[in-house]
Amino acid sequence: MPPLPGPDLPALLGLLDLAGIAVFALSGALLGAQLRQDIVTMGFFALVTGLGGGSLRDLLIGAPVFWIHDPRLAAVCLGMAIVAWFTPRRPWEEDLLNWADALGLAAYAVIGTGKALAYAVPPVPAVLMGVITACVGGIIRDVLAGRPSILMRRELYVTAAALAATLACLSQLAGLSTSIGWPVAIAAGFALRAMA
Amino acid sequence: MPPLPGPDLPALLGLLDLAGIAVFALSGALLGAQLRQDIVTMGFFALVTGLGGGSLRDLLIGAPVFWIHDPRLAAVCLGMAIVAWFTPRRPWEEDLLNWADALGLAAYAVIGTGKALAYAVPPVPAVLMGVITACVGGIIRDVLAGRPSILMRRELYVTAAALAATLACLSQLAGLSTSIGWPVAIAAGFALRAMA
Amino acid sequence: MPPLPGPDLPALLGLLDLAGIAVFALSGALLGAQLRQDIVTMGFFALVTGLGGGSLRDLLIGAPVFWIHDPRLAAVCLGMAIVAWFTPRRPWEEDLLNWADALGLAAYAVIGTGKALAYAVPPVPAVLMGVITACVGGIIRDVLAGRPSILMRRELYVTAAALAATLACLSQLAGLSTSIGWPVAIAAGFALRAMA
Repeated sequence: MPPLPGPDLPALLGLLDLAGIAVFALSGALLGAQLRQDIVTMGFFALVTGLGGGSLRDLLIGAPVFWIHDPRLAAVCLGMAIVAWFTPRRPWEEDLLNWADALGLAAYAVIGTGKALAYAVPPVPAVLMGVITACVGGIIRDVLAGRPSILMRRELYVTAAALAATLACLSQLAGLSTSIGWPVAIAAGFALRAMA
Repeated sequence: MPPLPGPDLPALLGLLDLAGIAVFALSGALLGAQLRQDIVTMGFFALVTGLGGGSLRDLLIGAPVFWIHDPRLAAVCLGMAIVAWFTPRRPWEEDLLNWADALGLAAYAVIGTGKALAYAVPPVPAVLMGVITACVGGIIRDVLAGRPSILMRRELYVTAAALAATLACLSQLAGLSTSIGWPVAIAAGFALRAMA
Repeated sequence: MPPLPGPDLPALLGLLDLAGIAVFALSGALLGAQLRQDIVTMGFFALVTGLGGGSLRDLLIGAPVFWIHDPRLAAVCLGMAIVAWFTPRRPWEEDLLNWADALGLAAYAVIGTGKALAYAVPPVPAVLMGVITACVGGIIRDVLAGRPSILMRRELYVTAAALAATLACLSQLAGLSTSIGWPVAIAAGFALRAMA
């Protein structure tokens, strides 16, 4: 897990964080499978999608990159590639994945903003760090796959991340406990994404 | 403003720096508008184009990323996206933007080289840092938009940046004051770009 | 040369390192030539292909980027662009380049893994750093050129890098001297790539 910004972080978010990496990694691996790539390329897509956004955030704010010294995170991504490799396609799969992706998106945006604020980044760049955490892994995945990125295709994708990140930042500026502000921000981002 | 390399920096360059970010951000936002994207994606393109090159330069030379702790810079980029959103297209617009872009390109190449030299980077990599500062934001913008990058389309784009960066580096190695060497380097890069 | 992980590094590897940069840079420059680009863009492709993977590795593990303070490395890449510019195409060229590329790929994967381990990165991320060192320069080159990346085209490319990196990591964990473990790892990665 990346270093998180405070001791009153709801335990729910710790779980969401690892679950978010797994869901994003799975979406990358499944794209690799759709493109008829082998397990190695599926693993590459899983890693890029699951870890790319948080890596760029950490580089920009000057934090140690969160997955370099915690080998479990890369292992989770590679594990999801193996899961995707062995799982036959099922009709309900895409729906489930979309819901999980929407939850991961909102959670990542909030966690990224919280980490940036914990590193004394001012509000506007901190919100941008949340958006980067949530969206950049998927954007790199799409660029590598040579298809139009989520940036161009689904307008409420970046917007939902921006909403969740903004609410997380405002609630923290207003002095709200993260155990109240963060779940509200995640729910709002998730709801906006689910509407799309 | 990014930390700049010395006290004798002409005030003109400080203005060019902020103006350069604004012009590059505007070009990104306008591309988003041409691609019929919403305001959020236009803002994303504005940020990437305005801040991408300098961010990569700072990561490579080990400097704190210039816009993370100065919230005005990201705000300027987002402001340009709003300007682009509300401004009706005008026939003279593209011409004006091209001239401003040429000026921003040359100024950025010089500023990037100066910052790298101030961080004790040797001449050849320092010139490359100037080129990266000037060109990488536009390259990422083009890759994200799925169109051939400036690298491939307009041969004198990177060349003009390389000329400005090289002259800035040579003038500094020759001991010239930046208040003489930098405007000359910018003018030369601008002239070469304007010829294309 | 990038700082290398230990005093018992075979001298052969020091040469392979510089030779690897040169070969990768040449492959980038030749792609630029095929795309009928000018010398400046060929130089850009040479730099990205030769230095891109190692740059990302160094950023992720928190090391100073290896070519910023050693101007010879960027100069070698630019020199290869000039070589590619002046050399007429020859029929045997592509074959020779493919063999050299396979050797560079395996050597880079091993060197990248060794450097990560020397920076106390745990085994799984360290192997990934080897793969990144070997493959990311070529991936960025392909994305910039707007063609399907090596990730998608040639399945045994990333796989060969992963094999060499894994063997290098295992041999180091098993306490083997790098003067035995590294050549074996390089030979295995090279053999797998050569089979493709």
